[in-house]
Amino acid sequence: MSTTKSSNITFHGANVTQAEREGILGQKGAVVWLTGLSASGKSTIARRAEQLLLARGVTVYVLDGDNVRFGLNKDLGFSPADRTENIRRIGEVAKLFAEACTITLTAFISPYRADRDAARAIMPAGTFVECLVEASVEVCEGRDPKGLYKKARAGQIPEFTGISAPYEAPAAPELVLRTADLTVDQAAEALIAHLIEKGFIAA
Amino acid sequence: MSTTKSSNITFHGANVTQAEREGILGQKGAVVWLTGLSASGKSTIARRAEQLLLARGVTVYVLDGDNVRFGLNKDLGFSPADRTENIRRIGEVAKLFAEACTITLTAFISPYRADRDAARAIMPAGTFVECLVEASVEVCEGRDPKGLYKKARAGQIPEFTGISAPYEAPAAPELVLRTADLTVDQAAEALIAHLIEKGFIAA
Repeated sequence: MSTTKSSNITFHGANVTQAEREGILGQKGAVVWLTGLSASGKSTIARRAEQLLLARGVTVYVLDGDNVRFGLNKDLGFSPADRTENIRRIGEVAKLFAEACTITLTAFISPYRADRDAARAIMPAGTFVECLVEASVEVCEGRDPKGLYKKARAGQIPEFTGISAPYEAPAAPELVLRTADLTVDQAAEALIAHLIEKGFIAA
Repeated sequence: MSTTKSSNITFHGANVTQAEREGILGQKGAVVWLTGLSASGKSTIARRAEQLLLARGVTVYVLDGDNVRFGLNKDLGFSPADRTENIRRIGEVAKLFAEACTITLTAFISPYRADRDAARAIMPAGTFVECLVEASVEVCEGRDPKGLYKKARAGQIPEFTGISAPYEAPAAPELVLRTADLTVDQAAEALIAHLIEKGFIAA
């Protein structure tokens, strides 16, 4: 054993600062937290925004049910405690992605204000963008791409947000996308315009 | 409600493929899973490799105790079940980062082969790089930067890896870094050379 060499191993002075990381990668990390009813358009808008951001060379990632519920959170069910833990973990993972300077889009119903506020609270100030994807229950039920509203009305899905469980809309979201009045591209472009305006990515 | 517009919302044909993402970002996602005794040098090597990779313009992120234990996994203790769940979640999060094409370095003792194999099993073939950060208990105990070995010898830390709990070394790691014989820079450069050789990043 070389004392000199092994003592190097404990040297911790070389960590990268957030400003250095941002400067090198040319973007700042943000969490765009899309919230809204089932079928309001959260995932679709997030996926389209991801595609458009990537085309700009932006490092971006979408967290949604497809990649979280069957992986990280596969041990969680739908009890109130598990729903809260589901959102807590998503918030923590989104925070890590944002630290890596990745534009992070989360697409979950996340109906409870307290859960969303907890996700905001762990982020550096100004880096959490709460985005209400707004559509009425009637509009969402009219779309019903997965037949979930139909099942909920038939009583086959208990505590379905908007039907038999509450949706607590954000009091002061940074962004509102009314999807009855917007195409997917318009909604995605509005999201991207917000990121540019706030300086997370270059114009 | 415009039927045309709202029907757009359910359009899901625009998802980005992994190959498209890799092509645009100019790098492929990988998980470099550093495993080894406490004070073997895992975090130090990971942090130095992160700095050197960033200097190359590579998007990279380190998952270690500092950003995981007090956030995502703050609900977990040190029981056998909680240790396994700790590593399971880290593996799932690393997988998400790799899907985003980020070079992901994890720095955890992760003493159990079954836990590491489970992290490997969820990754696409060839994208999990098990990296043994090798140093004997004697070498690590000689470093002991946090005084943990001293406490473990005094019986103040139960089930301490290498002292009172086993370390199951990888049978066939992709990479071995013997830190008694390497400087931090040499170890970090060896890790980066492996990433280049395997085509995850450009030379």
